[in-house]
Formats: sequence, C-alpha cells, structure tokens
Amino acid sequence: MSRTPEPRACTIASTLEVVGERWSLLVLRETFYGMHRFDEIQQHTGAPRDVLTKRLRTLVEEGILEKRPYQSHPARYEYHPTRAGEELRPVLILLNAWGARWRPVDGADAMVIEHEGGHPIDPVLRCAACGKEIAHRNISVLDTTRAA
Amino acid sequence: MSRTPEPRACTIASTLEVVGERWSLLVLRETFYGMHRFDEIQQHTGAPRDVLTKRLRTLVEEGILEKRPYQSHPARYEYHPTRAGEELRPVLILLNAWGARWRPVDGADAMVIEHEGGHPIDPVLRCAACGKEIAHRNISVLDTTRAA
Repeated sequence: MSRTPEPRACTIASTLEVVGERWSLLVLRETFYGMHRFDEIQQHTGAPRDVLTKRLRTLVEEGILEKRPYQSHPARYEYHPTRAGEELRPVLILLNAWGARWRPVDGADAMVIEHEGGHPIDPVLRCAACGKEIAHRNISVLDTTRAA
Repeated sequence: MSRTPEPRACTIASTLEVVGERWSLLVLRETFYGMHRFDEIQQHTGAPRDVLTKRLRTLVEEGILEKRPYQSHPARYEYHPTRAGEELRPVLILLNAWGARWRPVDGADAMVIEHEGGHPIDPVLRCAACGKEIAHRNISVLDTTRAA
C-alpha cells in the first residue's frame, strides 16, 4: 500500500481530455442553440479567436463536431455536433440545472429548454435498471484500484 | 441585427467558470471515491501540486468543497463535497457513461457505480414533468437573446 499510485485511468479523465475545458462545452452549447459558424460561436461565447480555432479543431478531430461546407470561395464551414456530440447534450442540461440552482446569473435567463410538447424540461437522472432517481445518497462508487 | 452580441450570459457559463476545467472535476471524482486528503487526491489525479492547490482553494471558496481539519500540528485538512458539490455527482455519472461509450480506456475499468441494492447503475436523464427520456431528438433550446 506504500507505492505511489498512478493517476487513475478512467473514462471520466479520458472524456475531460476532450471536453474538460469551458470553451469546448460552451461551443457545444452554441451548436445546440443553432449557432454553427465561427463568428457566431465566437461572439456568443466570447472565446478568444485563437483559442476557439484550436478548440474547434480538437472537437472535429475527436469526432464531436463535424465540418460542413457552406461557401466555397473562400471555403467556409459550419460546425455541427456528431452523434457523440449530441450525446453530450444531457451533460449540458445537468450543468444548466445545477447552475440555475447554485450559480444563478442576475438578469440572464438560464438556457430555456423545452421538452417534446413544449413544456419546460425538468431533468432528473434516473437508473434504467430500477427506475429510481440517482442521488448522492443512494449510490456507491467502487474503487477498483484498491486492494480488496 | 448587425451589432456584435455580448457573450451569452447563462448558468452553464457561470458553472463552467468554477468547474469547467478537468482537474476540478477530477478532484470531485476523487472525493466521490473517498479520497479526501491532498496527497491522495494528487496521486490519483496526477494534477501538478501547484495547480491542485489553486483548484482546491477555488472549489472551497466557491462552496463546492469544504475543509475539515484532521490534524493540528501541523494543521492538515481533508476536502469534502458540500451539498452543492454532491449535486454535481450526476454530471460525473453522465460523463462517465458518455466516456464508456465514446472514449473507452484500454485496460481500465470505468468508474464502477452501484445503485442502492447493489446493482450497476444505468443512468438515463428523464424529465420529471412528463417522465420521458431526455434525448437530443426531443428537446428544443430557445435562444432568449434572439429577437422574436
């Protein structure tokens, strides 16, 4: 038990290597708002242009966004979420709900999200195996790197 | 419509100002694994010590972690999630599930999470208003900054 452990290899860490940075998640937010072009994403996020260029390149390389040409002279591209990118939307929905509770922004609405039928969304994480809510009280995280 | 818009004020952005950085979320991961002391958090995340010191300070200042003394000569503290910190756990659970699908790590288990009763957790985001799953296909994001 005295050796220094390696950093934990886990899929949260591998995920955060790609999206664990505020501009990357804010870029995804904008694509969900329907903003797909560099200038609109830049203006709505406030990301420095050089940083945004790098983040967009990484998100495309990692298969989270895809480029779609919308103009050819000069070549211009829109950025659209792939299936993997779309599947990050629940993460943003939870961040939005957490923020509305713990980090309210004066004078600004939270992202307004409607569910099918047009009612405001009220996200709750449930377990598909048992149907119950997943709360901090009723889950256990097993450390598979610890000796039994 | 020609003025340059301000960056969008939203609770996702205000949330990411605090936790939109991989080390911060990995620190939270470790507290959920039961790691609460600086050295164990450092070893299991691999965060540079100076960066980790800053992240822990920020997380305490922002009310996501709290310090609890465990030794007095010299003074030493453990870091435990507050209620706000606990409520970020569903975000990590979703990141973990997304990563298991899109960023599997060779030779490493995903974080193993059990639900009450001991079955593996299978997270799904549902809408408390209607009970249906929240998927990228059935939600609309309204841009409240756009003119009608």
